[in-house]
Amino acid sequence: MIQFTADELRDTATRIFRAAGADAEPTEILVSHLIDANLAGHDSHGVIRIPAYIQAIQKDQIQPNARPTIIRETPVSALIDGNWTFGQVSARHGIDVAIAKAKGQGIAVVGVVRCNHIGRLGTYSTLAAKEGVVAMVTVGGVGKSTAPFGGRQGAFGTNPFSFGFPVAERPDVMIDFATSAIAGGKVQVARAKHEPVPPGSLLDKDGQPTNDPNAYFAGGMLLPFGGHKGSALATLSILLSHTLTGAADFAEAGQRGASGTFMLAIDAGLFRDRAVVEAEADQVAARIKDVPPAAGFGEVMVAGEPEVRSAERRRLDGIPVAEDTWAEISAAAASVGVTLARGAGG
Amino acid sequence: MIQFTADELRDTATRIFRAAGADAEPTEILVSHLIDANLAGHDSHGVIRIPAYIQAIQKDQIQPNARPTIIRETPVSALIDGNWTFGQVSARHGIDVAIAKAKGQGIAVVGVVRCNHIGRLGTYSTLAAKEGVVAMVTVGGVGKSTAPFGGRQGAFGTNPFSFGFPVAERPDVMIDFATSAIAGGKVQVARAKHEPVPPGSLLDKDGQPTNDPNAYFAGGMLLPFGGHKGSALATLSILLSHTLTGAADFAEAGQRGASGTFMLAIDAGLFRDRAVVEAEADQVAARIKDVPPAAGFGEVMVAGEPEVRSAERRRLDGIPVAEDTWAEISAAAASVGVTLARGAGG
Repeated sequence: MIQFTADELRDTATRIFRAAGADAEPTEILVSHLIDANLAGHDSHGVIRIPAYIQAIQKDQIQPNARPTIIRETPVSALIDGNWTFGQVSARHGIDVAIAKAKGQGIAVVGVVRCNHIGRLGTYSTLAAKEGVVAMVTVGGVGKSTAPFGGRQGAFGTNPFSFGFPVAERPDVMIDFATSAIAGGKVQVARAKHEPVPPGSLLDKDGQPTNDPNAYFAGGMLLPFGGHKGSALATLSILLSHTLTGAADFAEAGQRGASGTFMLAIDAGLFRDRAVVEAEADQVAARIKDVPPAAGFGEVMVAGEPEVRSAERRRLDGIPVAEDTWAEISAAAASVGVTLARGAGG
Repeated sequence: MIQFTADELRDTATRIFRAAGADAEPTEILVSHLIDANLAGHDSHGVIRIPAYIQAIQKDQIQPNARPTIIRETPVSALIDGNWTFGQVSARHGIDVAIAKAKGQGIAVVGVVRCNHIGRLGTYSTLAAKEGVVAMVTVGGVGKSTAPFGGRQGAFGTNPFSFGFPVAERPDVMIDFATSAIAGGKVQVARAKHEPVPPGSLLDKDGQPTNDPNAYFAGGMLLPFGGHKGSALATLSILLSHTLTGAADFAEAGQRGASGTFMLAIDAGLFRDRAVVEAEADQVAARIKDVPPAAGFGEVMVAGEPEVRSAERRRLDGIPVAEDTWAEISAAAASVGVTLARGAGG
């Protein structure tokens, strides 16, 4: 592991994307998203993504300087065309529109299509909650990594959901989870470490439950979390983000962009004073937080708390990046003419 | 078990509630809800509830002939006061308002407070989906039956969620689940049968995992489904239905009505032709349905399908009611001057 400060990673990532031809504004939005993901402890959505995004720019799959445009709009809804810019830029525009409409009309629904990979969903619900707006975000594609409950063939992606709710004093409630029982990345880690995955995570290619991570890479599949309940939420994710928005209509050949994004925003002050709502949300969080821990747990965490804690810690201690990841980022940098020294500052 | 036709149960329930002083209109809404729950296979929300509702009328907790009124309203939202009528009547009014507003403006959010027990949530999302409207419903109280993830003290009720999405030919997608891993009623059944509950369902009073259903009744608690994910959804349920709506403001002494109801409705035609959306939803359902079954499963079920199948079967074969349940319904009937014969027709 190499330890970087957030600012070092921010500067490095900015240099790379600017050299790849991205303007200052989309670069700032994208890089902030990546660094925030690392700070939150979700390294899978942080700077590790730089090589893939640089490659996508080089293959013309990402148009870094395209601007999202609005296809259809009402006072309470908008369908946004990402025009294949960075997914983080499209989705950021989407949540900004949703927040503004919710503040004006009370509620809003926004769909985003042709949006590439939008990164960590929790970013958007966190932004909304900071503005006093309740948010729900889901991205659902017609993937093959995850089997429906009772099935032995993939029919879902990891189809994640995120929710945000503003809280007065404590961290805002922020929920962000995949509807698969385990993320594909964690299966990779288990394979690398020659460790089993938890029961209920995987089926092998014949539809038999297994703890062997190798089975996933030999035609196996992830299971939904929580049995039929997670499977139902994965279905809902497709229906909201893909079917309702019409993402498929806007997708190009090769299934690119066939997953859309669904966003719901509700002014926390819809029915009564927003400050009262946020203060009562604080009491809800406090009541959960005050529950004594069960065997094997040090404390009860309220949804959103682990990310805030991680960011506090990593702002002080820095963000660890694996050597292999840094080598890949360095190679991506070199491909756009940027030379990174090994270690801090690039 | 005694087998009844749906119409026999409907007639019996109607006689009882009418004799208890309920007018024809609320009785019809309530009784239809109960019979639909039995038809759908969710007997826990069917005629088994009659004795509790009759008792609530007798204790003045249910005002059977009160009408729901609107406290606050915008073109896209409404806060509804149930005025302590049957929860099913208030929630039916709530979803009707939400559907009408969504058809007019595209989307709507409705809160219902002072609403008593609203019954099976799936009823409301099913109604919306039949009207071409996507729905989300949750009811979340400050209960004590379910521990948060990592905790050893109850802080949630079973805080259920339901979602509906209209589908062209196949059954509409209908999702309806508790955020606890197992329903309290199923723990009762396991205890009666002297059978263990599935792993991950319960903690004993000391916060230790247990399969012993007796532990639940000796100070134990339910666990959330899906670990931290279910726990987060239980938290969200409280925030939406209790904190956002302000249910607590309207609750009376003794915590009655401290749980509110949150409803979201979205016109399936918000972004493009509704018929196209429903036809594509059919393809989403078909793709899941076509997945070959895993070991131990006969077929893959799409969310909503089991309820439709059950209703088809029970319309032909009738609805089984346990002898004990029938005895309790008969006693409730007697308390309002209605004599039921044992068996069909009452």
